[in-house]
Amino acid sequence: MKQSKFEPSEEVLSGDTTDIYFARTIDILRSEGLNPVATMEVFTSRAGMLCGMEEVKALLAKVLPEDNREVWALSEGETMDSKEVVLRITAPYQSYGLYETAICGILAHCSSWATAARECVAAAHGIPIISFGARHVYPSIAGIMDYSAIVGGCAGCSSVAGAKLAGIEPSGTMPHALIIVMGDTVKATIAFDKYMPPEVPRVSLVDTFKDEAEESLRVAEALGEKLDSVRLDTPGERGGVTADLVKEVRARLDLAGFSKVKIFVTGGLDPERITYFLESGAQVDGFGVGSYISGAKPIDFTADLHEIEGKPIAKRGRIPGITPNPKLKRVM
Amino acid sequence: MKQSKFEPSEEVLSGDTTDIYFARTIDILRSEGLNPVATMEVFTSRAGMLCGMEEVKALLAKVLPEDNREVWALSEGETMDSKEVVLRITAPYQSYGLYETAICGILAHCSSWATAARECVAAAHGIPIISFGARHVYPSIAGIMDYSAIVGGCAGCSSVAGAKLAGIEPSGTMPHALIIVMGDTVKATIAFDKYMPPEVPRVSLVDTFKDEAEESLRVAEALGEKLDSVRLDTPGERGGVTADLVKEVRARLDLAGFSKVKIFVTGGLDPERITYFLESGAQVDGFGVGSYISGAKPIDFTADLHEIEGKPIAKRGRIPGITPNPKLKRVM
Amino acid sequence: MKQSKFEPSEEVLSGDTTDIYFARTIDILRSEGLNPVATMEVFTSRAGMLCGMEEVKALLAKVLPEDNREVWALSEGETMDSKEVVLRITAPYQSYGLYETAICGILAHCSSWATAARECVAAAHGIPIISFGARHVYPSIAGIMDYSAIVGGCAGCSSVAGAKLAGIEPSGTMPHALIIVMGDTVKATIAFDKYMPPEVPRVSLVDTFKDEAEESLRVAEALGEKLDSVRLDTPGERGGVTADLVKEVRARLDLAGFSKVKIFVTGGLDPERITYFLESGAQVDGFGVGSYISGAKPIDFTADLHEIEGKPIAKRGRIPGITPNPKLKRVM
Amino acid sequence: MKQSKFEPSEEVLSGDTTDIYFARTIDILRSEGLNPVATMEVFTSRAGMLCGMEEVKALLAKVLPEDNREVWALSEGETMDSKEVVLRITAPYQSYGLYETAICGILAHCSSWATAARECVAAAHGIPIISFGARHVYPSIAGIMDYSAIVGGCAGCSSVAGAKLAGIEPSGTMPHALIIVMGDTVKATIAFDKYMPPEVPRVSLVDTFKDEAEESLRVAEALGEKLDSVRLDTPGERGGVTADLVKEVRARLDLAGFSKVKIFVTGGLDPERITYFLESGAQVDGFGVGSYISGAKPIDFTADLHEIEGKPIAKRGRIPGITPNPKLKRVM
Amino acid sequence: MKQSKFEPSEEVLSGDTTDIYFARTIDILRSEGLNPVATMEVFTSRAGMLCGMEEVKALLAKVLPEDNREVWALSEGETMDSKEVVLRITAPYQSYGLYETAICGILAHCSSWATAARECVAAAHGIPIISFGARHVYPSIAGIMDYSAIVGGCAGCSSVAGAKLAGIEPSGTMPHALIIVMGDTVKATIAFDKYMPPEVPRVSLVDTFKDEAEESLRVAEALGEKLDSVRLDTPGERGGVTADLVKEVRARLDLAGFSKVKIFVTGGLDPERITYFLESGAQVDGFGVGSYISGAKPIDFTADLHEIEGKPIAKRGRIPGITPNPKLKRVM
Amino acid sequence: MKQSKFEPSEEVLSGDTTDIYFARTIDILRSEGLNPVATMEVFTSRAGMLCGMEEVKALLAKVLPEDNREVWALSEGETMDSKEVVLRITAPYQSYGLYETAICGILAHCSSWATAARECVAAAHGIPIISFGARHVYPSIAGIMDYSAIVGGCAGCSSVAGAKLAGIEPSGTMPHALIIVMGDTVKATIAFDKYMPPEVPRVSLVDTFKDEAEESLRVAEALGEKLDSVRLDTPGERGGVTADLVKEVRARLDLAGFSKVKIFVTGGLDPERITYFLESGAQVDGFGVGSYISGAKPIDFTADLHEIEGKPIAKRGRIPGITPNPKLKRVM
Repeated sequence: MKQSKFEPSEEVLSGDTTDIYFARTIDILRSEGLNPVATMEVFTSRAGMLCGMEEVKALLAKVLPEDNREVWALSEGETMDSKEVVLRITAPYQSYGLYETAICGILAHCSSWATAARECVAAAHGIPIISFGARHVYPSIAGIMDYSAIVGGCAGCSSVAGAKLAGIEPSGTMPHALIIVMGDTVKATIAFDKYMPPEVPRVSLVDTFKDEAEESLRVAEALGEKLDSVRLDTPGERGGVTADLVKEVRARLDLAGFSKVKIFVTGGLDPERITYFLESGAQVDGFGVGSYISGAKPIDFTADLHEIEGKPIAKRGRIPGITPNPKLKRVM
Repeated sequence: MKQSKFEPSEEVLSGDTTDIYFARTIDILRSEGLNPVATMEVFTSRAGMLCGMEEVKALLAKVLPEDNREVWALSEGETMDSKEVVLRITAPYQSYGLYETAICGILAHCSSWATAARECVAAAHGIPIISFGARHVYPSIAGIMDYSAIVGGCAGCSSVAGAKLAGIEPSGTMPHALIIVMGDTVKATIAFDKYMPPEVPRVSLVDTFKDEAEESLRVAEALGEKLDSVRLDTPGERGGVTADLVKEVRARLDLAGFSKVKIFVTGGLDPERITYFLESGAQVDGFGVGSYISGAKPIDFTADLHEIEGKPIAKRGRIPGITPNPKLKRVM
Repeated sequence: MKQSKFEPSEEVLSGDTTDIYFARTIDILRSEGLNPVATMEVFTSRAGMLCGMEEVKALLAKVLPEDNREVWALSEGETMDSKEVVLRITAPYQSYGLYETAICGILAHCSSWATAARECVAAAHGIPIISFGARHVYPSIAGIMDYSAIVGGCAGCSSVAGAKLAGIEPSGTMPHALIIVMGDTVKATIAFDKYMPPEVPRVSLVDTFKDEAEESLRVAEALGEKLDSVRLDTPGERGGVTADLVKEVRARLDLAGFSKVKIFVTGGLDPERITYFLESGAQVDGFGVGSYISGAKPIDFTADLHEIEGKPIAKRGRIPGITPNPKLKRVM
Repeated sequence: MKQSKFEPSEEVLSGDTTDIYFARTIDILRSEGLNPVATMEVFTSRAGMLCGMEEVKALLAKVLPEDNREVWALSEGETMDSKEVVLRITAPYQSYGLYETAICGILAHCSSWATAARECVAAAHGIPIISFGARHVYPSIAGIMDYSAIVGGCAGCSSVAGAKLAGIEPSGTMPHALIIVMGDTVKATIAFDKYMPPEVPRVSLVDTFKDEAEESLRVAEALGEKLDSVRLDTPGERGGVTADLVKEVRARLDLAGFSKVKIFVTGGLDPERITYFLESGAQVDGFGVGSYISGAKPIDFTADLHEIEGKPIAKRGRIPGITPNPKLKRVM
Repeated sequence: MKQSKFEPSEEVLSGDTTDIYFARTIDILRSEGLNPVATMEVFTSRAGMLCGMEEVKALLAKVLPEDNREVWALSEGETMDSKEVVLRITAPYQSYGLYETAICGILAHCSSWATAARECVAAAHGIPIISFGARHVYPSIAGIMDYSAIVGGCAGCSSVAGAKLAGIEPSGTMPHALIIVMGDTVKATIAFDKYMPPEVPRVSLVDTFKDEAEESLRVAEALGEKLDSVRLDTPGERGGVTADLVKEVRARLDLAGFSKVKIFVTGGLDPERITYFLESGAQVDGFGVGSYISGAKPIDFTADLHEIEGKPIAKRGRIPGITPNPKLKRVM
Repeated sequence: MKQSKFEPSEEVLSGDTTDIYFARTIDILRSEGLNPVATMEVFTSRAGMLCGMEEVKALLAKVLPEDNREVWALSEGETMDSKEVVLRITAPYQSYGLYETAICGILAHCSSWATAARECVAAAHGIPIISFGARHVYPSIAGIMDYSAIVGGCAGCSSVAGAKLAGIEPSGTMPHALIIVMGDTVKATIAFDKYMPPEVPRVSLVDTFKDEAEESLRVAEALGEKLDSVRLDTPGERGGVTADLVKEVRARLDLAGFSKVKIFVTGGLDPERITYFLESGAQVDGFGVGSYISGAKPIDFTADLHEIEGKPIAKRGRIPGITPNPKLKRVM
């Protein structure tokens, strides 16, 4: 467990982000002097890839009494089935009852991002996917979102915060804004090349002012061997990026002798669209995926008490006692 | 503008949560000595309720040069059409280029929550909606999510952080956990009543161990006049909460003389389900909505440069120059 | 042929239940002195299980002249294909022309019940099905309906008349009315046990006043070893009987040491619903099926003349002459 | 109440056709000495036309104690809404508990037939409908089925038993069998005319051996003014009866001077098909409907106890106490 | 009747293009000495606009005996309903029997083109439609196809032969081939302007080598006031012509002062697509429609004999005698 | 190449049927003195059977300079995939540019007819298909349409012109008109037999005045051994030709000893309907297909320039240079 990475924040520890009724529950139980050892199980509402467990464990390590706790869990990035129990905590209830909201929320959001990323990665059959969705989420989760995408198999991400969490370098090309401010794609590409450190790949965005094929040839001629890729991001108003466009740009680059220049595609990508490119035989060298990953619907998790002081119990609709799951490993 | 409420965080100001290519763009432009006055417009990909603008304004107030800026915007909570421009910034590009990711992200997420909340509120025709979805999102956004739900018309929310941002008291009943730990619904309800301050309404959750109608009568008899409501949250394994269940509990409470006790419904609610209750004639007194609001898909926003030093310009697919929108008001 | 069982009724023999035009036809032919030996074939409009043939044969045995008749038929309970000829009669037309309506009607209704029962039995993969649909049909056919369901594979039926025809004991549990009159499920179950002969299995209906799981444990504790089964019949207003409910009741009975108590399910069952229980892994020990069997749409049968005095003939749309069907056996 | 018409049969009175568990319930209550005055309500599962109530009343008149009974009911042929209470009995439970199965069964089947007939009548906009479905039901219900069809608005029926119950003459034309036995349609029609009493309309079936239009002209020429109608019953193998066929036969009859000869259509008719003929402008003078009416799925009825000795009670899922329905009239 | 325009061809008059069985029929009738005055009616299988009647009349004028003929018909371009009789010929059968194939074929094809054209014209609400589909049909019908499109409301057509038949000038812009051969759009446009007569509008095709918006500005600057329109024909590989593209080209032309230059759209157009442009608010000045018109499925016409020597007759399925249609006018 | 068969017509050679803009292009290039050797490729928009290539080759042989041309093509009747290049011409552009419209049009229409015919032939599994659609197309293409149907696999065609092009005898039976004029089917059949040369098969159309089965027996008895087939063409008003009708006519013919008389079916046939007859087991001996073949939607073909003077070039959306297709053979 990398504690430094997922140090629980003050707002979580204080109960500020929790549902108020858990805070009240702890108050009542304290007043009543009730603090039984209770077993809580957390299960997922649908299948996918589990993510967020590292952070949950960091939280539990901080709040559970070291001498009276037992925690079983699946691992970060492990596959989970619908209804599968992914976490089981046995400890005095007052020590962790307040954090049910946070535990469920962390797993819900992180697992949804990792699962969506995994779907794109599976569809791409080895072609790298970069997570480009930071712009579609609230800034305070841009980092954890990109971290989860990396857990899900993405080869890179655009946010600095996400790259830090995942222990990699952030990825990125250039925005339309740079080209518009500089007035020309070739000029912007040359400036990019001039100032950026050598390890940053030269990727030129070629749909801003001119036909993509024409612009690809212009930047290739301007940068020569140094050009790593062109990025196609044609807007929907112009038909979006199609497999035919990729094939044509590829053919025209090859005809002009630039067969080493790669093609990177972005804009409205999801597993279905990625599959379309692959099935059409368009030779894409990388995909940048945005809101399909970052806007993935959280996967609901549910927490239930199943034992109180060792005795099976459950609310109506649930089975009392421990739910067997041989995949669970003891982690604490 | 309530600056204290939406003070920009260090991670946003530092560019840590931004897409790396904006950071690089600013580097390049600085190296080139280019800092033209540029006009950026932000438009939404679909219709809904705008939210997050207060926070965006707080950010811009901090970063734009006071003597060389002009900002036009729609207001927090205002309705927006598909493709409508909601924000127009004119200022030296280096002062704000780094924040395109954060600006789009704040609006995307907050507007999605407010819009989803608004849909529930519209469906409920005056019956109060409480936002109960904190458990389905990453903890660091529980507060802003609940704030946005309140902007969208919710009467309350369960997270402490959200209530603070919205300037109200948090709402909540009791969790199944309290009842399971105490072993009986009546016992838990009496304890709740004993320790909670008088202004907290006594709402008893009645589906944990016994038939909902039977349990409703038991808690009503135990608390008498003090009981404000019963909360029905029947799990799907037991058929969920149905309009018929609500009608029957209402009838049995009335028959036993408890016609003042209200009925609060939670579990899998969305506008369609709320409409079902209303059209079935079930007399619900409040709804708690979870993942329909908190898991709403972010509404993509797009930022485009439309003028450089007063001259119309635009990338392919967009119209150069200012996009007229008489609804915009100058805010800075 | 068990003639005692299917003695033709006076109203059939008199022609009272026939279509008037057959009575008129016989009148005309008599007046004209026409009574040729005619061959009539009866075929089914859709595939299924043939039933009612025993009764049809009893009727024909009574009305056809013994020395001038030839009857070929499929057997009771035999499978039939769409359009298959199931009966072929060769005899003087005046002897049987009046009974075309009755013959078609008996086969139509009995075959529909047997076919529907067969579908349920097939879906249940060995778990017994009891026919519980007498309450949905006109009383004079309750017996023949339940008889047909037994032919279709049901293990029992609830009507006394049906059980008599099928030569078995009627099956049944207890109605909600008994429990409501006695005021409590446990009390009603004890009274049932006190007065019923020992060979009647003790099956307690557990959804009348309390939660099904709670009530199951109460009756199990009250009757101990004598309790054979609990019956779940949760109404739609409470979500109906679900696989999850069955699993939970099973688990709670097992936890309490009552693993020998069986679970019998009723309410809105059909092959699709039965399959749902099996595929969900819910351990049901018996199903009671009502209107899916008793309200099955009659399978239309059609009777056509194909030979007159040995010469092939047919109306337009049909093929003149005998229709070959090697499955037919000579029965008269 | 016409008691002679609906004298309860011995098999109903004896409990032979009931579900065995009602017989057992009466045994148990007798042994316990329990016979409270109980109120049972019967409601329908879907909207339609109520039928069978006359027979139910005849049964109740026989079994309920005259000095301790109160019965409220809708009338035979009255419209009922989904879930509407159509019958309320207050009497000592032992006097009627045994008959719950029969009461529900009578109403279920009769109402389904009347409702289906009503739908055909509504679709036909005044063109008479004759019930022709006796051949698709078990003979013992042919009569009550046709009676119900008449209650539903049919102008006639083919079974003798049904006509008796409804107090009318049975209707019918001639079967294909008569024509096939006689070898020619014209010959059969002339024989029919020769022997049938004058009040029976001469309706000739014209699709047996020759083209329908050709045969229509042949029989019209043979019978002249005496021919009332031709009946079209073209089998599906020949395309069934179509609106175009009706129009053509009409036109050819008119051209030949037989504009008074009517056209009667049978074969696979239901409200949708009847509407098709009317909307196509085909001039049909009468429809014969078979299995749409006789094979209509029984409308489930449910009986619930709502008061015991004047006190509201009900099983889970139902509302205790009397269900208000101002349409109910006291009938006993 | 403009005889010069629709002079019957030798291959039609000779019977070369007819179904062989009509030639044989005439042979047989001649051998038998049968040549009755017969009335043939021609009706359409579906609604639409009638076209080809002028040519049919020219044929009939040539073959029917002047002193023994009566022809009633709808007019060229008149609306017809499904099943409507559009032509009625009364004359000696031998004079016209051979031409049934040709008459039906002319009306079938011409009416389908006119009807499809009419649908486009209706969708365009006044914006001119040019028929551009000659390239999708066999050359010998290019002219009559374009003539029919003009009857259907098109403002022009691209084929020389069609324009001649319709009495107008052919319309056209320039093909991609000209631009590719000349190597540059501006160069080709200047050459076009240099050599074409002044009355030919200068319409430049702007999607061959460069971005459409960029190319539009280049040709506008090169030709100045002389440029009439730009034509957008973006191929599907590049997303086709979209409403957004039209709006953007319009806006960029206007910004550059070329608001008089019109925009002409071609490529995959049909009424639905035309409606899309109009509903999207894109300001299109003309549409070129190809295969939707030229490849329209022929509208089947059927010819039936309804009278022989004044006596009503008809084959099965049709009504004997004259079919009344007050819209028919006597034309011969 | 059979030049006599496909001699290019004057209207094609003159450019009369071409799009005007090709004529203008040639004018401009002549004025500019530009006549480069250009390579044009023609590809199909969808898969099918190529037809019309013989005629295209005859045209090219006439117009291309013998000493400076290279033509590669697929063969008449060869299968082609979607987007496949079927023709590649390299020659001075002025020699063939004018004929792009005609080349595309010939291939479009002929390939659509051949492809549709091929689909019917495939569905018929060896039962012969006759092309009967001349009546649904403009007369000038009746011949080429039937020729294409023969290329597609049809065993015969009804038009004289088509049979000539294909080098076979035309096929046909008799029209309803002959029977109506003669007043009786048997009479018409006898006359047909009397006057037609012996090699024309005697096929009698049997649905005009009487029931098809009855009429079949009548003509079989009248003609005896000479009768080759009966043709069923029952109109939709009488239910059309069904598999059951075919089976019944077959059975009645066989019963009467006419098992050698074949059954030929026409009316509304397409591959789906043909498959229905085969799957139903109806023994059809021949099908006559009309508008499915003759009204098949033309298959769009597109012509693109890919090289100018040996240098790769292409408009946007296409790949510059020769498109490899090993199936192409050099034909000139």
